[in-house]
Amino acid sequence: MKLAIAGYGNLGKCLEQQIYKNKKDELVAIFSRRTLDNPKYLPIEDIEKYPDIDVLLLALGSYSDIEKYSDKFVNFDTVDTFDTHAKIDGYKAELQRTKPDKISVISTGWDPGLLSIARGLFCFDNAKTVTVWGSGISQGHSNAIRTIDGVIDAVQFTEPKPDYGTLIKNGETDGRKLHKRVCYVAAVESDKKNIEHTIKTMPDYFEEYETEVNFVSSKEVRELKKRTSHSGRTVSLGNGFESETQVKMQSNADFTASIMLRYANAIPRLKLDGYKGALDVFDIPMKYIAVRNLI
Amino acid sequence: MKLAIAGYGNLGKCLEQQIYKNKKDELVAIFSRRTLDNPKYLPIEDIEKYPDIDVLLLALGSYSDIEKYSDKFVNFDTVDTFDTHAKIDGYKAELQRTKPDKISVISTGWDPGLLSIARGLFCFDNAKTVTVWGSGISQGHSNAIRTIDGVIDAVQFTEPKPDYGTLIKNGETDGRKLHKRVCYVAAVESDKKNIEHTIKTMPDYFEEYETEVNFVSSKEVRELKKRTSHSGRTVSLGNGFESETQVKMQSNADFTASIMLRYANAIPRLKLDGYKGALDVFDIPMKYIAVRNLI
Repeated sequence: MKLAIAGYGNLGKCLEQQIYKNKKDELVAIFSRRTLDNPKYLPIEDIEKYPDIDVLLLALGSYSDIEKYSDKFVNFDTVDTFDTHAKIDGYKAELQRTKPDKISVISTGWDPGLLSIARGLFCFDNAKTVTVWGSGISQGHSNAIRTIDGVIDAVQFTEPKPDYGTLIKNGETDGRKLHKRVCYVAAVESDKKNIEHTIKTMPDYFEEYETEVNFVSSKEVRELKKRTSHSGRTVSLGNGFESETQVKMQSNADFTASIMLRYANAIPRLKLDGYKGALDVFDIPMKYIAVRNLI
Repeated sequence: MKLAIAGYGNLGKCLEQQIYKNKKDELVAIFSRRTLDNPKYLPIEDIEKYPDIDVLLLALGSYSDIEKYSDKFVNFDTVDTFDTHAKIDGYKAELQRTKPDKISVISTGWDPGLLSIARGLFCFDNAKTVTVWGSGISQGHSNAIRTIDGVIDAVQFTEPKPDYGTLIKNGETDGRKLHKRVCYVAAVESDKKNIEHTIKTMPDYFEEYETEVNFVSSKEVRELKKRTSHSGRTVSLGNGFESETQVKMQSNADFTASIMLRYANAIPRLKLDGYKGALDVFDIPMKYIAVRNLI
């Protein structure tokens, strides 16, 4: 299969490495938003000139960049990690409208993605499902901060509140009450007050969370970004049962990349079976990403 | 929806109770293999006389009974819990051949079933997945023992081997090496030697396991059967990640029944979307059994 990558941040680099390592697929192009000296990296504006791509892997920040470039992707089958839970339905409808005959696998990764399916598994009437993440960097939230004027660099750690276990046992199911969002931001001095306000009032991302904003140096942000490990667990409590799915990973971006590639590899079979349009992880049967003997 | 139940053991009774409790669907008939005094329970041989059933829930023992009566079910959409992992493909192919235009949702329950999907989630190249069950009764294995001549009653507990944690850490991935199958059998005295041999050499069910056969009284079997709790956990270890899904339930049959009903409720929507034939849990997207906001 001929793969291409759009976006060359952490996730794009992990995708590149894995495609080379797996030796299953051919990496035909990497498109970057930045101008890079190496001719291997093509400007994303030119992506429409390269029709010979089976699946385009979107490794852009989900909030603004995917929307910014979305008209460039209408002729490609894509896999992305769009991760704003509250906006997935709208994003899906838009892709369904603009590229109804292409396959767009949206919102893959581990959450949304694999943990979404784990939540779905134990979705019984009257069961309560709670997901707790971290401690780890949220790329989507870090990217969202970096789009704010005056921000030089930023990283956001999602952390469970110290007493999250007690909160869940006492009936708390609102994830916004179980987590803290800790932001480390390098910024232009005069913009700091405005930046803090913009972060704390950003809908979906921060507005409804306990959010801590720490202004630090660019060097400190760079150091903090090296912490790549992450984890998540989803707990369901129902009538007569309890379940928990947890996953821990050394590198969030690397794990996310490996999930994207599983969905990318499903696309030829999905097409053969008549699938088209925008598909999320709830639309795609397990048989397309898992080996049958695991049943 | 008009539901009917075939088989009136533990699972059938749990299905009956839940359908009444849920008040979503109508229970139009219960078909039993035994002759029961109550006219509410119809003989399973007559099932073809009742065409006005939307979904028939098969609550029979999977090994012999489903196959024994399968020609009676060809005109119904069905949900079953066929649980012989090694025979699922053959069973599926047979249903696909005999009732290609009906929907047969096979091998639901928590394993195979929900835990199958949990295994599929973390099915990365080079990852190892191990599932450990119990301690708890395996209905399928208990039923299999009860089909042997001379057996009056029986119950089988699946137990993790005491050192299963160490075994997995040391690389053991073969579930047959991680569990013990402990059978309690009430039997005709003269058949005991033959029964023990038949159990221990039964393919797929016992042959490749450490199997312990204890002959006890019928009263003791009845007491042991009251232990309804069960649990399972599936662990995946891969490059840079580890995951675990575990589920504990107070009543195995009750939990299984609630899973069957989720798949039964999916059938009208599956039909609308063009699905037909034999479908297992790897064929059915999560959207049919889970609410969308869990993505």
